[in-house]
Amino acid sequence: MTKFGIHDVSSFEMGYEAMSLALNDAQLKPDDIDAVVVTMEDAKVNDEKQRLYVSAVASLLKKKLPIIRVPAVCGGGGAAFWTAQRLHYNNVLCLAVDKIVSTTTPILTKEIMNAAENIWEQEEGLIFPAQNALVAQMHMEKYGTTHDDLSLIAYKNHLNGALNPKARFFGKKISLDEIKKSPMIATPFNLYDCSISVNGAACAIISNDKTDIEVAGSALATDYLAPFEREDMTTWEGTVKAGREAFQQAGISTENIDVAELHDAFTIVEIIAYEDLGFCKKGEGKELIRKGVTRLDGKMPVNTSGGLKARGHPISPTGLAQVVEIVEQLRGRCGSRQVKGAKIGLTHNIGGAGGTTSVHILKRA
Amino acid sequence: MTKFGIHDVSSFEMGYEAMSLALNDAQLKPDDIDAVVVTMEDAKVNDEKQRLYVSAVASLLKKKLPIIRVPAVCGGGGAAFWTAQRLHYNNVLCLAVDKIVSTTTPILTKEIMNAAENIWEQEEGLIFPAQNALVAQMHMEKYGTTHDDLSLIAYKNHLNGALNPKARFFGKKISLDEIKKSPMIATPFNLYDCSISVNGAACAIISNDKTDIEVAGSALATDYLAPFEREDMTTWEGTVKAGREAFQQAGISTENIDVAELHDAFTIVEIIAYEDLGFCKKGEGKELIRKGVTRLDGKMPVNTSGGLKARGHPISPTGLAQVVEIVEQLRGRCGSRQVKGAKIGLTHNIGGAGGTTSVHILKRA
Repeated sequence: MTKFGIHDVSSFEMGYEAMSLALNDAQLKPDDIDAVVVTMEDAKVNDEKQRLYVSAVASLLKKKLPIIRVPAVCGGGGAAFWTAQRLHYNNVLCLAVDKIVSTTTPILTKEIMNAAENIWEQEEGLIFPAQNALVAQMHMEKYGTTHDDLSLIAYKNHLNGALNPKARFFGKKISLDEIKKSPMIATPFNLYDCSISVNGAACAIISNDKTDIEVAGSALATDYLAPFEREDMTTWEGTVKAGREAFQQAGISTENIDVAELHDAFTIVEIIAYEDLGFCKKGEGKELIRKGVTRLDGKMPVNTSGGLKARGHPISPTGLAQVVEIVEQLRGRCGSRQVKGAKIGLTHNIGGAGGTTSVHILKRA
Repeated sequence: MTKFGIHDVSSFEMGYEAMSLALNDAQLKPDDIDAVVVTMEDAKVNDEKQRLYVSAVASLLKKKLPIIRVPAVCGGGGAAFWTAQRLHYNNVLCLAVDKIVSTTTPILTKEIMNAAENIWEQEEGLIFPAQNALVAQMHMEKYGTTHDDLSLIAYKNHLNGALNPKARFFGKKISLDEIKKSPMIATPFNLYDCSISVNGAACAIISNDKTDIEVAGSALATDYLAPFEREDMTTWEGTVKAGREAFQQAGISTENIDVAELHDAFTIVEIIAYEDLGFCKKGEGKELIRKGVTRLDGKMPVNTSGGLKARGHPISPTGLAQVVEIVEQLRGRCGSRQVKGAKIGLTHNIGGAGGTTSVHILKRA
């Protein structure tokens, strides 16, 4: 992956950099690739006016391959990685690129809101911070989760991100006090409950020949469009279904996961993911962060990369950046944020307010 | 498929109608479906502000399945159909929807132009009619194709479309004289050299259980982004590669094709497709239309549906509407436009100026 940040680099350059890094890492050449799955958000969210990015990739690789694009808003990276598994080629390159920081904030906010349901939610101006804030309020009401719990999630992920050279907030220390006192965005969220928009690209190559890391589980589930259509707004069924299927495929349980990258678009989403993936009982997600289980020195560190919060969230590339982090952890290359002896890792990536969710389990072969 | 036209119906309603028609036709229920591949153009081309249409489909089907979206501009339908083949599920539903007519023409033109290369072509205002007009000029110069040949393509496709109740120009007769005298758009194209924007949806179900029609060949190829990057602007290598691969998979040759739907976004594109798919030698495409080979009463009728020209071109659904037409032809259900005894048919769908191309060969089992 490229560094995630606010640098003004074109989607061509970022895509080229991420593909080069992945090809070098895999010791493969463009000629070895059989197909490509690209994920990139639509024009307007993305500042690049390049609707046919599949052909841009053909131009960059100088290879006229089968190439498809699989966007899924913030869940694009995971959806593309899932699709790439299932295409049944020997070597599939999976690339995610988005350039969103130079899009102005009002346009970006409005266009991302278009991922919400378009009859009631969009009409009401239910932007994603507001939508997730309502979920957080309900979770707090129902299960006694507090804003202090949410702040601990932000604090943990910023501590981790400060150790990740590819992260937006690499080297930047943020105190728990600063986090708690940051400006209000949408009750109960303040600034540090929200992830940060960045530009970036990430790439993974799924190969039948290279076997140091195995994809042991790969599942994608789609939930109904609007949270109000669902039985319970505090349980995200896409996560439940995709998680269950991935664990079943891998033939392991939550106990076996050494390290995980979970979709912390907002702090509450990480807590709900603890519960919906089965790392604790429903409503007890807060205990994992209170007891430090998911801290870097805990039993199962979560978001060692910094997560969407501190590594940054460039929309489509997020799901692949999670894969990059888990692969690096399983290979023992993470330096000061390395989880010792990590053998099995999990990624969890969401598009919309739980609308589409993928879970992947990676295993040291 | 729904009727293609200028009706103001939401993407939800059109998608629901097309899925219902396909499920009824296949005698399947939503519960029988294992996965869905959706194709829909991005916000701004499409008037519907619904970025996460995958979740809208979950809501419509009331099924929380794996659902991905595979947009590829005008080649979306074919790319999605190709992807659906390769996902390896028992029953995959493939849905294409676009609502573009209520988008204003200046916005639509600009946004579709964003499928062109974004550094030189877009900056020069090279909209698709202009881009294809340059290709036509070069083809005329190189091979002696005339504007009268192009007019014959338009005339043929309008004759066919007048017989298709689902077509935008159903029942509308247009004389060769009207076609030749229509207003100039971009030399050598006049109005009737260009396809027509419509709203619509189309759906196909790929099933391991139903075997009256077999997908004998399915190929996707991506060419470089800009025509100026290619060796020859009058040969579209995506078509050559995808065609060759599809014929190889099916184990047949061009002689075996009884009926074909080719991507006539502009009249010249149909002539180039004759050549690049191998139905004649390079440069001799004009002979097929002059001699009536591809007319409804010819040896190999092309675009019996009316094609993009007269059935209409709603961007993503075009590739699936081609599949619908070929399936109906192979089943002998096409009434006054039926090709007698058709056993094998071909579809050819392009996104961009040849940037991404799919070819499918369907066969009566």
